[in-house]
Amino acid sequence: MDALAIARACADAMWADDVASRALGMELIAVEPGHAVLAMSVTEAMVNGHDLCHGGYIFMLADSAFAFACNTYNQRTVAQHCAITFVAAARRGDRLVAQATERMRAGRSGIYDVTVTREEGFVIAEFRGNSRAIEGEIVPGLKPRGPARAKP
Amino acid sequence: MDALAIARACADAMWADDVASRALGMELIAVEPGHAVLAMSVTEAMVNGHDLCHGGYIFMLADSAFAFACNTYNQRTVAQHCAITFVAAARRGDRLVAQATERMRAGRSGIYDVTVTREEGFVIAEFRGNSRAIEGEIVPGLKPRGPARAKP
Amino acid sequence: MDALAIARACADAMWADDVASRALGMELIAVEPGHAVLAMSVTEAMVNGHDLCHGGYIFMLADSAFAFACNTYNQRTVAQHCAITFVAAARRGDRLVAQATERMRAGRSGIYDVTVTREEGFVIAEFRGNSRAIEGEIVPGLKPRGPARAKP
Amino acid sequence: MDALAIARACADAMWADDVASRALGMELIAVEPGHAVLAMSVTEAMVNGHDLCHGGYIFMLADSAFAFACNTYNQRTVAQHCAITFVAAARRGDRLVAQATERMRAGRSGIYDVTVTREEGFVIAEFRGNSRAIEGEIVPGLKPRGPARAKP
Repeated sequence: MDALAIARACADAMWADDVASRALGMELIAVEPGHAVLAMSVTEAMVNGHDLCHGGYIFMLADSAFAFACNTYNQRTVAQHCAITFVAAARRGDRLVAQATERMRAGRSGIYDVTVTREEGFVIAEFRGNSRAIEGEIVPGLKPRGPARAKP
Repeated sequence: MDALAIARACADAMWADDVASRALGMELIAVEPGHAVLAMSVTEAMVNGHDLCHGGYIFMLADSAFAFACNTYNQRTVAQHCAITFVAAARRGDRLVAQATERMRAGRSGIYDVTVTREEGFVIAEFRGNSRAIEGEIVPGLKPRGPARAKP
Repeated sequence: MDALAIARACADAMWADDVASRALGMELIAVEPGHAVLAMSVTEAMVNGHDLCHGGYIFMLADSAFAFACNTYNQRTVAQHCAITFVAAARRGDRLVAQATERMRAGRSGIYDVTVTREEGFVIAEFRGNSRAIEGEIVPGLKPRGPARAKP
Repeated sequence: MDALAIARACADAMWADDVASRALGMELIAVEPGHAVLAMSVTEAMVNGHDLCHGGYIFMLADSAFAFACNTYNQRTVAQHCAITFVAAARRGDRLVAQATERMRAGRSGIYDVTVTREEGFVIAEFRGNSRAIEGEIVPGLKPRGPARAKP
């Protein structure tokens, strides 16, 4: 399998397992090695009396995009430290999109940047996650099959 | 009103307005000027297929405790930047407690530390929030009545 | 003046004023609106007995690049919050390069990402700075002269 | 040796090795298991043309206090991630004090909070450091001798 196929297989397995993200109505829009895009609409259960979205739900969308992005290499990887800056408010009915991009990986550590926007592109929050690879595969037995390994 | 009565009146008003925190089953255990304690049980909707709580819900509990703690002076105050370190996993059925403590306030800025533990005290996450006071009161017209203002 | 000329005039004025960065042997390699590149060699005064660079000097290089990048619009801007992840060690004699890039600006707030590498491109540290614009110009009287303002 | 004696032996060994901190005129005021207090005066080389201290030097003092505090158990421990909020300016001639306190340790990870004040107690900056224990002792062969190990 090539890197993209592995990334997608990992995302499918994680998605099947991630009750929490699905229960919030998140959609997995795209996934590539080190990247993921998720979307979520702000529902009535996510807002306060002024129709403003609780910051925790914005974090949750960003955190899910981070988790999908850092788990695209079939090595189980967890969040260690996350930081979020809230830039603007989100309101009931807004459709939010989180784009997670890998900034670096070195050894077992990685850094991922996630930008959360309203669908039209206006920035709501900027998130940075520090990940750490742990023991275990996401899809047991999945093997990379790239040029460097093609032939003995 | 003294500072404690103001803190409680602010918390009551915020609680009435905070659909999101209540919908997650959070409980407001205690509030004082600059401090707040909230609790939440990890439900089936918050976990993945291995019964591990999504980090976003741990963040949400910490973030709510932060919001209640920094809004105890009857001046509307919002989260600007939050950072969380995940120390240990939480599981379905765990009752989590978040203790928010004010570290400092200077001008319109404040820093609050929140420790999230399992009920028995084992640390799950450490959170730090940077707040910023904005225009507006939480309970319009509420007036402090302390020693420094007692004399005409 | 166009945006690039303003950015350079701001950088020149800051550089003339920044005794601390110059005293450490920093060099200002490039500056554009929202961007700055600085370099610094790790000297004997910056290391411990094992020739490893004190993390504080890596931070200082990143922080200076951040300061130059966020002060390219002739509006005085200060660091509010900075976070740094140390990825690899730097040693005596290494020439470090910090590239600061603007991630976003909204109102008076901004976010800048700085990557510190060894000269050959190996990542040493990833830094993110949150800035806030304050009162005052960097070069008093400097006026932007762009297409939108060219003609009445 | 008891825990306090070990902490002090570690600090002595680190101090002897830490050319960078000594070159900046830092003083090691106190050390205990998980705690350290350092002081530093803002010199002419640390300020800009307006006598304001470069934020990097404030970070460096906090970072050094963090390093001394997390290395009090005779297990080599390094900084992974640090965040600092700048609360107020420091000026030439100010004597700054950094107090580092351990917030938690779990496995190989730790979190330390450092408050930097002017000598009279006014807060300049709040710092939080995430540490990670690595292989190796600070003082080879140093053995704890506590109640739990007293009996053969």
